[in-house]
Amino acid sequence: MADIGFVGLGIMGHAMAQNLIKEGFDTVVWNRTASKADDLVALGGRAVASPGDVAREADIVMLCVSDTADVEAVVFGPNGVSSGISPGSLIIDHSTISPGATKDLALRVNELDAFWLDAPISGGSEGAVNGTLSIMIGGDVSQIDRSTPYLEAVGSTITHVGPQGAGQLVKAVNQILVVVNQLAVSEALLLAQAGGLDLEATLSAVAGGAAGSWMLSNRGPQMIERDWSPGFTIDLQQKDLRLVLAAANDLGVPIPGTALVYQMYRALQNQGLGEEGNHALVKALEMMSGVEVGSHD
Amino acid sequence: MADIGFVGLGIMGHAMAQNLIKEGFDTVVWNRTASKADDLVALGGRAVASPGDVAREADIVMLCVSDTADVEAVVFGPNGVSSGISPGSLIIDHSTISPGATKDLALRVNELDAFWLDAPISGGSEGAVNGTLSIMIGGDVSQIDRSTPYLEAVGSTITHVGPQGAGQLVKAVNQILVVVNQLAVSEALLLAQAGGLDLEATLSAVAGGAAGSWMLSNRGPQMIERDWSPGFTIDLQQKDLRLVLAAANDLGVPIPGTALVYQMYRALQNQGLGEEGNHALVKALEMMSGVEVGSHD
Repeated sequence: MADIGFVGLGIMGHAMAQNLIKEGFDTVVWNRTASKADDLVALGGRAVASPGDVAREADIVMLCVSDTADVEAVVFGPNGVSSGISPGSLIIDHSTISPGATKDLALRVNELDAFWLDAPISGGSEGAVNGTLSIMIGGDVSQIDRSTPYLEAVGSTITHVGPQGAGQLVKAVNQILVVVNQLAVSEALLLAQAGGLDLEATLSAVAGGAAGSWMLSNRGPQMIERDWSPGFTIDLQQKDLRLVLAAANDLGVPIPGTALVYQMYRALQNQGLGEEGNHALVKALEMMSGVEVGSHD
Repeated sequence: MADIGFVGLGIMGHAMAQNLIKEGFDTVVWNRTASKADDLVALGGRAVASPGDVAREADIVMLCVSDTADVEAVVFGPNGVSSGISPGSLIIDHSTISPGATKDLALRVNELDAFWLDAPISGGSEGAVNGTLSIMIGGDVSQIDRSTPYLEAVGSTITHVGPQGAGQLVKAVNQILVVVNQLAVSEALLLAQAGGLDLEATLSAVAGGAAGSWMLSNRGPQMIERDWSPGFTIDLQQKDLRLVLAAANDLGVPIPGTALVYQMYRALQNQGLGEEGNHALVKALEMMSGVEVGSHD
């Protein structure tokens, strides 16, 4: 048996698996495109042929794939994790997927006498590489306790937020804040630019007070320099907002600011900008006005 | 001659004038409702009969009134500051008013061989009382230098942001950030509430990362407790947003998130909630959904 299994070696999952291997854990990995595991094997990891094989080798299996359907496929599809799972085993899902679907998936896993933690992450690719991700976890505290060494290998802030499904809902809350704060920064910089203000001086004047945010302090300067390199892409954020809007719809609450940003991201995708950082949101307002933030430099 | 004059003794102006008197400056004051000056006179201030008399007694006159028309009236109306002003004198306008109108008012004052600083403030009534306001100043740096002792008596962060009018425009930028961040917090808490999350645990999980803002950390807990006491009222914020939207319109830039919040504040005013704190914005979303943040407590 291995210490830990990992399914899904995209940008985030690959970096997380690498940190587990570097910590000295016996780690089995699987990815749809098998070659993504090559350098992990060189580091001491072990690649297996299916998600089911991962579950046969490890009684704790971490997942990090793209969307709700992908989680369903690697858990309940052919040769999925559920085909190899033993009673008492634990699945930790680090993907960002539907909060509602998560509750259903978790219950189906519970029916196999196995456990589920939904444990979406934030902190971007840099946080994944450095092992400093924030992890928001829904599920039983005892299951967090048994997996603490592995969680601490990939993240630095590990917060239990409630029962199964709560982790995904907190991630949705997180994304609302991220994108609507991003809208605030975009509108603020656009007005400042149109009015001929010195953008750096404007940021210094307001960032320390009631107008302040992580987004203003971290992405504001990047936007002024027109540096659109992604911490997190528009394509991924737009996918996350689709989940957030679906969750809000299911729960019957209006989130009009978030809906507005979703539409703006859609417009930017239509312009071929889906792979830019999600702070390129300001470009949707620029297209509507002909004003470009920072373009006087 | 006095050291300094002050016109407009509302909640903010009264506290600012009091700090000037407490610092030992010989301070002349005027207010439309004269009785607001009584306790300042008891502290050692001197009340005079008109804004013009303030200007005859002091060659630096601070203003803090409500709106563009009020500034125009106390400066250029009957017995206004301009009727008593001497060449070389300085007007410092701490009101939040139109950036465009400010440029015109400043030029008219310049034609009298006098100077203008637009110096809107943020930090709320608490900042005014404690002398810790943030002051965003447009105008000549030399005029800031001559008034530094008085500015430091009322504020703790004094930032020169550009020429005449720039202070008001930066204040507009500030208010965009404040209210759209407030929208973010409102939507986030509403979704969390509807999904049955523990709101305090949710805040702790997200406030330290990319979702963080002053508004989330400071008004979030207040909203969870349904404490709507005003740091700044909906009525005042709605007035500020009217100025912001007019400025954006003049400059030809779309600020759809800010426009949305403006409409939501209008709805809340129609419900008789104009005197609540501007973080009661969430009530507009609550009315649309029947969900109440924190109401499970």
